[in-house]
Amino acid sequence: MTAATDPDEERLARVFLARVVEPGDEAGGQWVRERGAAEVARRLRDGGEPLPGVTARKWAGLLARAARAEPERDLAVARDAGVRFVCPGDVEWPRPLDDLGDARPLGLWVRGGPSLRMWALRSVAVVGARACTEYGAHMALTLAAGLAERGWVVVSGGAYGVDGAAHRGALGAGGATVAVLACGVDRPYPRGHTELIGRIAAQGLVVGELPPGDHPTPSRFVQRNRVIAALTRGTVVVEAAHRSGSLVTARAALRLGRHTMGVPGPATSALSAGVHELLRQEAVLVTDAAEVIELVGDMGELAPERHGPVLPRDLLHAGARRVLAALPGHRAAAADEIAREAWTTPDDAIARLYELRALGYVERHGDGWKLTRQAMLSVRGGRHPC
Amino acid sequence: MTAATDPDEERLARVFLARVVEPGDEAGGQWVRERGAAEVARRLRDGGEPLPGVTARKWAGLLARAARAEPERDLAVARDAGVRFVCPGDVEWPRPLDDLGDARPLGLWVRGGPSLRMWALRSVAVVGARACTEYGAHMALTLAAGLAERGWVVVSGGAYGVDGAAHRGALGAGGATVAVLACGVDRPYPRGHTELIGRIAAQGLVVGELPPGDHPTPSRFVQRNRVIAALTRGTVVVEAAHRSGSLVTARAALRLGRHTMGVPGPATSALSAGVHELLRQEAVLVTDAAEVIELVGDMGELAPERHGPVLPRDLLHAGARRVLAALPGHRAAAADEIAREAWTTPDDAIARLYELRALGYVERHGDGWKLTRQAMLSVRGGRHPC
Repeated sequence: MTAATDPDEERLARVFLARVVEPGDEAGGQWVRERGAAEVARRLRDGGEPLPGVTARKWAGLLARAARAEPERDLAVARDAGVRFVCPGDVEWPRPLDDLGDARPLGLWVRGGPSLRMWALRSVAVVGARACTEYGAHMALTLAAGLAERGWVVVSGGAYGVDGAAHRGALGAGGATVAVLACGVDRPYPRGHTELIGRIAAQGLVVGELPPGDHPTPSRFVQRNRVIAALTRGTVVVEAAHRSGSLVTARAALRLGRHTMGVPGPATSALSAGVHELLRQEAVLVTDAAEVIELVGDMGELAPERHGPVLPRDLLHAGARRVLAALPGHRAAAADEIAREAWTTPDDAIARLYELRALGYVERHGDGWKLTRQAMLSVRGGRHPC
Repeated sequence: MTAATDPDEERLARVFLARVVEPGDEAGGQWVRERGAAEVARRLRDGGEPLPGVTARKWAGLLARAARAEPERDLAVARDAGVRFVCPGDVEWPRPLDDLGDARPLGLWVRGGPSLRMWALRSVAVVGARACTEYGAHMALTLAAGLAERGWVVVSGGAYGVDGAAHRGALGAGGATVAVLACGVDRPYPRGHTELIGRIAAQGLVVGELPPGDHPTPSRFVQRNRVIAALTRGTVVVEAAHRSGSLVTARAALRLGRHTMGVPGPATSALSAGVHELLRQEAVLVTDAAEVIELVGDMGELAPERHGPVLPRDLLHAGARRVLAALPGHRAAAADEIAREAWTTPDDAIARLYELRALGYVERHGDGWKLTRQAMLSVRGGRHPC
């Protein structure tokens, strides 16, 4: 039902809607899917009849928010803070998030150099209790370091306890890490992690659904967890009490068909009780990074050992990463077109393309270039992509 | 192929063979199955042609042992030590051991009052490392106490570490426990557990395949583990390093279709590494007695909550237990016959039978009495009975 729309208008409408609709709101997601973001934004700005599936009271609340929304200003504030807006249709959009259906984020605010889409392909979430034990912090740090050393991206929520230890483990190993926040990415939360989140943005990525300046709420924490689960190939819970928020992430991962793992602890520890509950259901017990990779890296013909590294951040220069990100997902493109998209010269793009071919990322296709079958498969399919 | 044989001769032949053939010897088990114990014993005594599947050297070894065997003396020594010999065909023989096929014990030497067959119906093995940690000892003790308090029989190997803690937990709860030894049951091993094994014999059962006076060997420990696995409804491994003997028990339990469980511990503990390995395969993670019972007690219509307790040792007086043990497994019997088997008067037997009927163990059948369907099922079937 979506009318042909101006991509720039759609994009601006998504920025507008991100200010109006709460993360994970499936009614809003359905409107956007059926009518397009620009049309939904118009309806909210013009204040006409309520859209379907929403109470009069909720509609009034949305209209009040819509009246205050300033998407151009949000984009400008973000730009000044080194933050970009990535939304469905963009080259950098991580396709695994599409598995969330109508709960898919309208877009993500992204702080940091690397391509979120590429990093998501080879990422694992390491999450757990804020008030973790020394043992939990040790395990999170060690696991994350091991994953990072083997070229995997460690995704977590930037919180105290297990999350912080996971980010620090990855950073300490000189590896890749992504913090998914429940607030504006220009507004680090918790405050005590301002320095840590700054380092993550410098060495990796800080992302979130909330527009600049927005603050976290309990429901935003819960909704943030679905993004962590969907973005990654699997979720490891390190420590969690019964009814812990990390179990929300784990259950979301299970629902999405992602690998769901738990680190065991003493049966006498209340902070392992939630993990053990999970392990008695569908999660797989893991005790080190190798066991995690054995599971999430189980890609058959796509195994990185046999086809070259899928996302070896340390092997790809920024220029090559830009060229890789500029390749369209589903068709071949000429080197000229790729060069334009990657903001480089055709000669440079061609040099990078040959480099990427050597690494197994791209192949020649007539006169053009395209992602390899492995990379193609990696951005399609029900289960989490490659 | 078994010729009609004198039960007493068969029984004495099994005592003889238990002195000659090593535990778990499948060639020996096959001979007995195909020819009967008496015939195999004759062949070994007379020293004729080797039986099939055995080297000349092994045959010579068996003949040498046979020449020294004195089964009547073994029975007399056992009797003086309060030890009885229970073998297939006996009322007290635990049918689950038949699942071992040709590796089935020739018989078991049993020390202690209760019926081994009845106790096995509602038993769980709790096993683990000899050199366990404080944590492992704590978990074994707590689990065993919880199982015993809920009317379950705790089976273990009488060793230092986890085994000892499991026996002590059951004894401390005033519950039922069985030690399965890898040596003669009149010869406690390890020596440091002489007092403990004495208490087990007084309050529960001490059993083993080896004839009086025999000593343990490494292979006898391994073979002992198959008896623990087969006898019980499930095996819980509390702590075990990689390549630990308790993993042998757990794998035997898996092969036999028994429930196999593991208690998690810190991922950093070498003494939990073997358990975690098991939990990554087919074993179920358990953290307390309730979780163990949830698994092994999953009997559908046979659930003790709905049909009366299956083996509430504390509810059955010794007299009732003897009457219960005297009922034949597959047919009805008259009260007179049962009284004779139970060494009591017909009047007393009838009183006990009504008591057992109230508890759901037995039912009237014409003029006779028989085990209830639940109890009948309990001594048949591929998976562990009851």
